Amino acid sequence: MQLRELGEFRLIERIKSKLSYSHRDIVKGIGDDACVTRIQTGKLLLSTTDTLIEDVHFDLGFISAHDLGKKSLAVNVSDIAAMGGEPRFFLLSLGIPSRISVKFIDQFVSGLSEAAQSFQTYAVGGDTSLSPERFVVSITVLGEALPSHAIYRDSANVGDQIFVTGYLGDSALGLKILKSRTNLSRVEERFRYLTERHNSPVPRVTEGRLIAENRIASAMIDISDGLISDLEHICRESMVGARIWLEKVPLSEAFQKYSKEFTENPTDLPLSGGEDYELLFTVDKFNVGDLERIKTEFQTKVTHIGEIVEKDNGVKVLRDSGQRYTVKKKGFDHFL
Amino acid sequence: MQLRELGEFRLIERIKSKLSYSHRDIVKGIGDDACVTRIQTGKLLLSTTDTLIEDVHFDLGFISAHDLGKKSLAVNVSDIAAMGGEPRFFLLSLGIPSRISVKFIDQFVSGLSEAAQSFQTYAVGGDTSLSPERFVVSITVLGEALPSHAIYRDSANVGDQIFVTGYLGDSALGLKILKSRTNLSRVEERFRYLTERHNSPVPRVTEGRLIAENRIASAMIDISDGLISDLEHICRESMVGARIWLEKVPLSEAFQKYSKEFTENPTDLPLSGGEDYELLFTVDKFNVGDLERIKTEFQTKVTHIGEIVEKDNGVKVLRDSGQRYTVKKKGFDHFL
Repeated sequence: MQLRELGEFRLIERIKSKLSYSHRDIVKGIGDDACVTRIQTGKLLLSTTDTLIEDVHFDLGFISAHDLGKKSLAVNVSDIAAMGGEPRFFLLSLGIPSRISVKFIDQFVSGLSEAAQSFQTYAVGGDTSLSPERFVVSITVLGEALPSHAIYRDSANVGDQIFVTGYLGDSALGLKILKSRTNLSRVEERFRYLTERHNSPVPRVTEGRLIAENRIASAMIDISDGLISDLEHICRESMVGARIWLEKVPLSEAFQKYSKEFTENPTDLPLSGGEDYELLFTVDKFNVGDLERIKTEFQTKVTHIGEIVEKDNGVKVLRDSGQRYTVKKKGFDHFL
Repeated sequence: MQLRELGEFRLIERIKSKLSYSHRDIVKGIGDDACVTRIQTGKLLLSTTDTLIEDVHFDLGFISAHDLGKKSLAVNVSDIAAMGGEPRFFLLSLGIPSRISVKFIDQFVSGLSEAAQSFQTYAVGGDTSLSPERFVVSITVLGEALPSHAIYRDSANVGDQIFVTGYLGDSALGLKILKSRTNLSRVEERFRYLTERHNSPVPRVTEGRLIAENRIASAMIDISDGLISDLEHICRESMVGARIWLEKVPLSEAFQKYSKEFTENPTDLPLSGGEDYELLFTVDKFNVGDLERIKTEFQTKVTHIGEIVEKDNGVKVLRDSGQRYTVKKKGFDHFL
């Protein structure tokens, strides 16, 4: 079915019926001028927004509508996780070209709904409109955190140790595989783990919350631009430098097995590939023991990859030999 | 200057320098994974989002970058006003085509900043990215209201009287004038009031707050789709019908003077033209006296245009003669 057969009002009703959720903190969800929610007493409001535009942030040949729905929410939830917060509600804004079918929207919404359930983050409002060419998804996630738990980018200190969750580079390698196959359906089963790491990232909400509640981290960020680029954000805001130990950067088995097939610079992908949506955080050395203790509750591994140094040293990647490694391209710039 | 000379990071710094604002309730503004704000104890959080896409919601031949910045925030603030709430913070997401100049962005941001100051609604976060063809603006406004002050669409009652702020139809007529002149610069001075009503709408925040604080309204909405279409939203949610007295619908002098020149159906524009961003609200007849009392503080007029009736009667427009008037097209549907 085409959208022109359904019309805007019935489309909204259709989306609403799949995303509406009863919750004691949702006073008024989808369907009024604004949504009305309760923030728990004593907590701070966290909010973050990300707009994903077709052929800039995603290619519909490489990702299913279902996964795109999941990922659109996941990348925003990841920003809340990086603050040590708890995601609670979201607003969804869709710009839909006339070529997009109702079935596509249904699948997109089903992915979104699956992600909403898994993060316990519920739709409370949004809008839909026509878009001339590209499918546009804009999501705002609202979350909360106790004032003493929120973790910023600007409070890393010299001597802090640098940690990262999960494996880096899988997502960037997954994208390279997708591009080389020119279509999702042509990707061989053995590469599925890597392409799923790109199309269906898991934001580290549990880990972020545990780190926050136990006051483990001095600074934290999620890796969306790339390890070095995001570490530079922490360093710039905190006015410090950093040293990353190249051989310590965690690589998945699949990455080690297949990366050489798809890139001439397999070393660079985990450093600058981006879209890992893993947490990068700094820990005062007296808290490293606490991290060891709580990491048993993590759903993914955590790896010690470097340390914070004086600002004048900049951000450097070092080999075991002590030699400096230089990344060719640090991260993604939309306009360069 | 072109964006490719500036790059994404410096563009964000440039926007941030113009929109950043110190406020005791902004714990962390632009520049972290998520922004962190305080919601006043005992208040509910209101949130609303609207995405404006070039050539769907605006035409850069008809609106200046400065006015587009103002309007992008105003239309979202209007949704908070319609809840009887106080707008507080906003997030801004921009999708920028490479043809857009840095000067355009500067002017857009200056309009946005002007609106932010006038509504005391401050930027706390957002994102920027490339957009292949169209300029895309997505704004989320966060506001707050006391639980006893928030006004919904679903609580109009039979016998309630219907009121509207300001004049209707100016915005739709302004757009017709812009289209007939094919470019903003060709619009004659005498039409300026009407085109400004389209390009630079004033959300009725003061009026909405006074109505809320004095518990005047049983239901309220802002007119974005058109009077009849938005009244139907109230009627559907409240399970009631409504009667509008055609001759009572408030028309500006300029509208009365020029509307026949630009449309064959001048009667329809105030009923279905949309983008008025005036408040439409229903008042229990025992509260009408209170409305008379507080309206002296309004920055615009308020007009009694009809009444709520039983659901079975539907939503009707009546002439003084008692005859029914039928609107040709009720409102705008993005997909029909």
